Amino acid sequence: MKNAIIKPRTLSGFRDRLPHEALVKKTILQTVSDVFESYGFAPIETPHLEYAEILVKQGSDEIQKELYRFKDHGERDVALRFDQTVPLARFVTQHKTALGMPFKRYAIGNVFRGERAQAGRYREFTQCDFDFIGTDSVCADAEIVQVIADSLLALGINDFTIALNNRKVMNGYCAWLGLSGQTEGILRIVDKLDKTGEDKVRTELIEQLGISAQQADSILAFTKLKQESGASEFFSGLFAYRGLDPQLDKGLEELQHLTELLDALSIPDSTYKIDFSIARGLGYYTGIVYETTLDSYPKIGSVCSGGRYDNLTATFSNEAMPGVGASIGIDRLIAALEELSLLDQKSTPAQVMVLQLDAKYEKHVYKTAEKLRKAGIYTEIYPKCDKLKKQMNYANNKKHPFVIFMGEDEITNDSLTLKEMETGLQYDKIGLEEAIAKITTIDV
Amino acid sequence: MKNAIIKPRTLSGFRDRLPHEALVKKTILQTVSDVFESYGFAPIETPHLEYAEILVKQGSDEIQKELYRFKDHGERDVALRFDQTVPLARFVTQHKTALGMPFKRYAIGNVFRGERAQAGRYREFTQCDFDFIGTDSVCADAEIVQVIADSLLALGINDFTIALNNRKVMNGYCAWLGLSGQTEGILRIVDKLDKTGEDKVRTELIEQLGISAQQADSILAFTKLKQESGASEFFSGLFAYRGLDPQLDKGLEELQHLTELLDALSIPDSTYKIDFSIARGLGYYTGIVYETTLDSYPKIGSVCSGGRYDNLTATFSNEAMPGVGASIGIDRLIAALEELSLLDQKSTPAQVMVLQLDAKYEKHVYKTAEKLRKAGIYTEIYPKCDKLKKQMNYANNKKHPFVIFMGEDEITNDSLTLKEMETGLQYDKIGLEEAIAKITTIDV
Repeated sequence: MKNAIIKPRTLSGFRDRLPHEALVKKTILQTVSDVFESYGFAPIETPHLEYAEILVKQGSDEIQKELYRFKDHGERDVALRFDQTVPLARFVTQHKTALGMPFKRYAIGNVFRGERAQAGRYREFTQCDFDFIGTDSVCADAEIVQVIADSLLALGINDFTIALNNRKVMNGYCAWLGLSGQTEGILRIVDKLDKTGEDKVRTELIEQLGISAQQADSILAFTKLKQESGASEFFSGLFAYRGLDPQLDKGLEELQHLTELLDALSIPDSTYKIDFSIARGLGYYTGIVYETTLDSYPKIGSVCSGGRYDNLTATFSNEAMPGVGASIGIDRLIAALEELSLLDQKSTPAQVMVLQLDAKYEKHVYKTAEKLRKAGIYTEIYPKCDKLKKQMNYANNKKHPFVIFMGEDEITNDSLTLKEMETGLQYDKIGLEEAIAKITTIDV
Repeated sequence: MKNAIIKPRTLSGFRDRLPHEALVKKTILQTVSDVFESYGFAPIETPHLEYAEILVKQGSDEIQKELYRFKDHGERDVALRFDQTVPLARFVTQHKTALGMPFKRYAIGNVFRGERAQAGRYREFTQCDFDFIGTDSVCADAEIVQVIADSLLALGINDFTIALNNRKVMNGYCAWLGLSGQTEGILRIVDKLDKTGEDKVRTELIEQLGISAQQADSILAFTKLKQESGASEFFSGLFAYRGLDPQLDKGLEELQHLTELLDALSIPDSTYKIDFSIARGLGYYTGIVYETTLDSYPKIGSVCSGGRYDNLTATFSNEAMPGVGASIGIDRLIAALEELSLLDQKSTPAQVMVLQLDAKYEKHVYKTAEKLRKAGIYTEIYPKCDKLKKQMNYANNKKHPFVIFMGEDEITNDSLTLKEMETGLQYDKIGLEEAIAKITTIDV
């Protein structure tokens, strides 16, 4: 009896990546992980599945609703991770002795959130996090900015802005306004400035939090402070805010230390700017925070955000564990690179495809390909002697930069014919060394 | 109110990878994926979560019991993938037009099986598969052998044996013995030769399948046929088996074609051998099959196995889709490399760590590190001016090959002091270029 056919499909909110997409993603991840490693961040891995209690505790209510949570074979209450930060906190507490502090790690992995399906949002997506844990040094914060800048530059993106703020600044300013207890609520509303605009934020501050119109105006004016030229000018302009509140002073001092260190380095000064409107919604940030926008594609939002936290491991330990980290939004970055035409459209990692014209040349073809590979050239061979047109179509569709073919003439005088696919230029009966040189120099 | 502390722990059968383990795994995966790509295999990605019906159909009963299966937020019946072959079949059917045939892909990803927990077996583990789909050419089978050999050689493993067989050979031989209908049962029992020994296999063949003692002996004698020296001698020795059965003939012919092609290439002849005892338990193989053992560590079992299948996509389409593929057992390979002392024990990707001796040198330290990175040297900076001993312990524990420090003397004459950690050799007040040269040449 013939089995019934099952319709091949993915779950709503989940997706496959075809070769041209997976190749692009792989190149991006490779590039950024090389940058992470060049600063001494080491990779770690944690499982996709954890005890639900590990994940549930630190997550917001919204995240708890979105958790993929179920009972496993042993009736354990388990869930798929929704981020890599909570597993990091669990990991750091569990392996603290073996790791030693400070500890620098990066993690590239998939996380799962059962959000309502919508365009451009997926229920499984890749996070790319790097964190510097166990130190309160502003040097560590500076390194995060360096890594963000180096990562984008390495990807060929030159115009971007890393907006810097410090939670302590707003905390201190709110304290000075007599609104200490409401800072979190204020930040949550101010975080929407970009989306809802100033009027709406003002109304929400007054109506939802019950603060005075004067206080709301004062907060809004404060969030408008941002660095326009050099950092030192910006700090000189803030003299009126010094001495109002110790937290505010401390926050400004940290930002000043940060920018002074960065200004001394070769990272272009134009790529980072203090901006008091940057709130970062997440409750656990306590110090310097970051958001990164692409100047030529700002509407995609922040492609790399993060900040400093005082106590990563509060759920798992009574010992405080400070740190600072950020996360690169890989999907946004891919979308942006696509928009900026910085992406390769190849469906193959190979640089050249060798055609097969006659079964009797098979060994010769395979030997030639072997030599090309030994010379470092990624070489595919069409697996059988199909019609020439079919083989050429295949190479065209996959966007092979070059094809090689060898007929009787070529084989007799130990040569080959190389064709450059985009231009159609053909190099007849050239030697292997010459072909290698052409593929290496022409292919970029 | 203080929250209760949650004990940090992973689920039984799941594990973290610490930096030194994750670094090793990353290097191995990088090495083998470079080899895959050098043959034109392209990466793809499929989701970790699929409709259960997609996964359940093709899996064996055992795998169905081990499936992590649950209802999602939309009450859909979903499951975590237990391998990457079933998702590949779904993927190939779903995207056939966009992909074009033949299609070469690799996939590195985690799969989940709720097996009974036991030493060395994990419920989440990484699979590393490569497949050549949409062609019945023996050239494709040869390429699989080339990729296996190149991967192991690239990892520094030189002594290994890729055992080759062809399902058609045993199918044909069984048909000649009048046991056509029982080949699958026979293969399942013969597959245990290594574990249970000849006597047990003989008894099982007779008792479980009801075949005669003579037939059992004949099968056992046949499984003992293996290539001792050259492939051509082996095939000459098989003259008595020619013409007995068309499938057997076809199977031998394919193996002969395969070894003739491989013999012409530079892959060492000693690394692949025909062995009729190789059965490969999996039901879907229909042609040439592979198993790879390490000569200096055979007891770990096959580190790379695979084979040819006639119809990958039977569950999802009525159209036949042939292919050939193999899978590298990453965990076994890591265990073997550890046993063979071929593994690095570093906990950091950095080649050098710069110490911080005084806060007033901070900018100088960061500028120096920036120059080292621009010269391609992975450089970590200790984030603050802790006691020298603490900083040195940190570098020791992470196994940094070098440290650099700069005190007043060094900074005054724009030099640095470089220390090689393993030997304790110290290069006092040398220039940056000299340090770069030493780090680049000494570090391996």
